[in-house]
Amino acid sequence: MGELRVRSVLVTGANRGIGLGLVQHFLGMPNPPEWVFAGCRDPKGQRAQELQNLASKHPNLVIVPLEVTDPASIKASAAKVGEKVGGSGLNLLINNAAIAKLNSLDTETLETMTQTYTTNTIGPLLLSQAFLPLLKKAAQGSPGSALSCSKAAIVNISTSGGSITSPYGWELMPFLSYRCSKAALNMLTKCQSLGYREHGVLCVALHPGWVQTDMGGSAGHTPPVTVEDSVRGMLKVLSSLSEKDTGTFLDWEGKVVPW
Amino acid sequence: MGELRVRSVLVTGANRGIGLGLVQHFLGMPNPPEWVFAGCRDPKGQRAQELQNLASKHPNLVIVPLEVTDPASIKASAAKVGEKVGGSGLNLLINNAAIAKLNSLDTETLETMTQTYTTNTIGPLLLSQAFLPLLKKAAQGSPGSALSCSKAAIVNISTSGGSITSPYGWELMPFLSYRCSKAALNMLTKCQSLGYREHGVLCVALHPGWVQTDMGGSAGHTPPVTVEDSVRGMLKVLSSLSEKDTGTFLDWEGKVVPW
Repeated sequence: MGELRVRSVLVTGANRGIGLGLVQHFLGMPNPPEWVFAGCRDPKGQRAQELQNLASKHPNLVIVPLEVTDPASIKASAAKVGEKVGGSGLNLLINNAAIAKLNSLDTETLETMTQTYTTNTIGPLLLSQAFLPLLKKAAQGSPGSALSCSKAAIVNISTSGGSITSPYGWELMPFLSYRCSKAALNMLTKCQSLGYREHGVLCVALHPGWVQTDMGGSAGHTPPVTVEDSVRGMLKVLSSLSEKDTGTFLDWEGKVVPW
Repeated sequence: MGELRVRSVLVTGANRGIGLGLVQHFLGMPNPPEWVFAGCRDPKGQRAQELQNLASKHPNLVIVPLEVTDPASIKASAAKVGEKVGGSGLNLLINNAAIAKLNSLDTETLETMTQTYTTNTIGPLLLSQAFLPLLKKAAQGSPGSALSCSKAAIVNISTSGGSITSPYGWELMPFLSYRCSKAALNMLTKCQSLGYREHGVLCVALHPGWVQTDMGGSAGHTPPVTVEDSVRGMLKVLSSLSEKDTGTFLDWEGKVVPW
């Protein structure tokens, strides 16, 4: 279980929270990636200030305009990334962008259900479709046939709140639309693992813990896990994954989460 | 495990396939329900001919115009059912209406994902919200406190193809949008079971088998299970459910399906 060694990585929803934490960690590695792509909706906006500061110090950080609910924006982002990485492709796609509406069984609507599914489930599907050619290139250019995150991988940031077996925190946080979208994201991950194995792409769903972010704190409770600990844990988990782990659902400490 | 005895039941997507089979079985019971409500998009249309024939022979069958993706249509259907059943409420809501798009990981789009989720997942949510007052009434008017389908229940027709643990038939039938929508429906079922227990409403997800219907045969393979066997099996399963079964995922023979 060595350090994660990738030439290129794209993190979506990278301007804050877990996404920003992932970007910072990649940039701070002893052997950082050649390219760290940070997808964010409004790269010039106030909420992307921290990303902009990082980019001024790290020439290997590229901020990519990306609205994950817009197929045209996704295609444009894949073209931009493709230009930079050329024939070596993209090693790692981290689908982190997500929204949560604080609704219950009684207050969800057609609109909240649709918006949440579009961002949290359809977004990762469309991103994976658009970046698959680059992931395949990375897999083909990597030595050995065994799957790994250093070769080529899709990482879908899920949640134990999306575990149907044991939907974490129901009493405090019913959030139906969020839970349904994440259960569907887990199904997407399983299907991607079945479909993309032949292309040399590992696929995994990760529960980052209940993390001290805007989203994590949105229900009015203080989450127990820091961004720092979550991100360090997830990257350690990713570095350890092999063939047998594709299509699994793991938490930030490497424990299996039941579907 | 006696016969299922309900005063009233609503079946959505009732004009053909499993929905029509369920309606026929309820009408043919030795002690049929006082009211069998058959939801269908276009009650006057050619595709509702069989329902119309049944209604001319069975005064307890009421065909209800219902488009499960339209909140206004859902509200109108609840008002219509409420008028008929009055204070005794609705015992059984069977969310059967569903669509399947024959797409794969590579060919799904924003549109196919959205349409499928809206019909297969959001529809059952909105139906359950709209009929909850009638389900509660039925639960309150029923003797005893234990949950059962004869008292009050929401039955979501799911599929073993929506099992993340073991997504049935991936090689033959990838159908990603369908699988994701059904995994999300399973999460909805679990959440409904947690939220509605206090109201006396049992909630369960059923896998009807791979059934000889238009949908079942749409992939070009002949399904092994007849509508007759599937429907008889599911009603037997429903008649056997008690407190401990709310929030579970069962097949038409009563076996637990893994999430």
